[in-house]
Amino acid sequence: MTRHRVRVPALRGKMTLGPAETRHLHVLRLRPGDEVRVFDGQGAEARATVLELDESRAVLELGEETAGASETPFPLTLAVALLKGDKLSEVVRAATELGVARIQLLVTARADAREIGEQKLTRLRRVAQEASKQSRRAVVPDVLSPIPLGALHWTGRLFVAQPGAAQRLGDLLDWTAPVTVLTGPEGGLSDPEVAGLLERGAQSVTLGPRILRAETAPVALLGAIAAYGA
Amino acid sequence: MTRHRVRVPALRGKMTLGPAETRHLHVLRLRPGDEVRVFDGQGAEARATVLELDESRAVLELGEETAGASETPFPLTLAVALLKGDKLSEVVRAATELGVARIQLLVTARADAREIGEQKLTRLRRVAQEASKQSRRAVVPDVLSPIPLGALHWTGRLFVAQPGAAQRLGDLLDWTAPVTVLTGPEGGLSDPEVAGLLERGAQSVTLGPRILRAETAPVALLGAIAAYGA
Repeated sequence: MTRHRVRVPALRGKMTLGPAETRHLHVLRLRPGDEVRVFDGQGAEARATVLELDESRAVLELGEETAGASETPFPLTLAVALLKGDKLSEVVRAATELGVARIQLLVTARADAREIGEQKLTRLRRVAQEASKQSRRAVVPDVLSPIPLGALHWTGRLFVAQPGAAQRLGDLLDWTAPVTVLTGPEGGLSDPEVAGLLERGAQSVTLGPRILRAETAPVALLGAIAAYGA
Repeated sequence: MTRHRVRVPALRGKMTLGPAETRHLHVLRLRPGDEVRVFDGQGAEARATVLELDESRAVLELGEETAGASETPFPLTLAVALLKGDKLSEVVRAATELGVARIQLLVTARADAREIGEQKLTRLRRVAQEASKQSRRAVVPDVLSPIPLGALHWTGRLFVAQPGAAQRLGDLLDWTAPVTVLTGPEGGLSDPEVAGLLERGAQSVTLGPRILRAETAPVALLGAIAAYGA
């Protein structure tokens, strides 16, 4: 079944898309007759068939509704620096509620911690399982053992929360590909770390002009994504 | 000094505003020669004078830079239902980092708690003070004693996080007035409570299709506002 998903204002028998969503169909190289998934960002999701498609306008026909409605259109990953004490538990719990499919732990230059015990990792995985159940998700996010920041690979888009960043998440997020959000340790990522990420195609985004704790930043950033309706 | 603030992409000697921001100047009944504040959402803020103003375009001239750059353009209030245990401390701490000017505690129909001790209130105020300092704000948010939801009054806009809401915060937030965000207790607000708020002009906004804990929702919602750059 098609993995391509298109956001629509509401699931209707025939859905006419405006220029932005139509461009998205062209980017995906879709043609009349192709199948996509449509979602309204509120939990409703269905199959749909492309009926008409021209330069700036497309018409889709609704098919059967599908499950998986509490998952984001493409997988959402949180890449988060190791934090001291029990802070990671709270981050894992909130991130699970906010829809992440994976949590990748990171070792960074200004690391609060450089490693994590097997027992603690097991505990984080249990937290993800509990939180997934509580928030009625069908998916339990993977919590992946820490890797150095330089070894992080991603597909789609990576957004890094950066004090003083000029760009806003809402202006960049379009859910046409998987999304990774990355937040640093207490004290932040180092300048070379940020520069390295941007060179590799990451985009820095603002979380406002104040200093956030390392455990608040991921929840705020994932909250911003959730507020986008996905 | 003027309280009117206008968001600009960057602080420059002469700043030309597009139709949306120009409409905002008309709403504020400003005329050439009037003074406003301009801010870039990244912490820079300055005085500016309206040089030209027609239907869909305005030109502002930059004045001196001003302080208060880590505060939102208009006051941001969090109205939050009483929560059990120490959950409110975490909410107050994160809300302070995320820029709220006031935290109004609420008694709601499905209240986790119906009152709060004087000692606990004092503790919450101390948490706000510490968090304000840590996030380098000049302002310490007020933490106001609980009132019944029906007694809540607000000026400007009120956004209530509501599962299944159709509207997105990013499509509604424009910082032309004070903003209040409201989140409920574990189990949510009752239907009559939500209906009452909407009748009084509140707007419900989505935080995605999953169920959030009562202590996650305010951080997610305020995170979404912070990601708007203010």
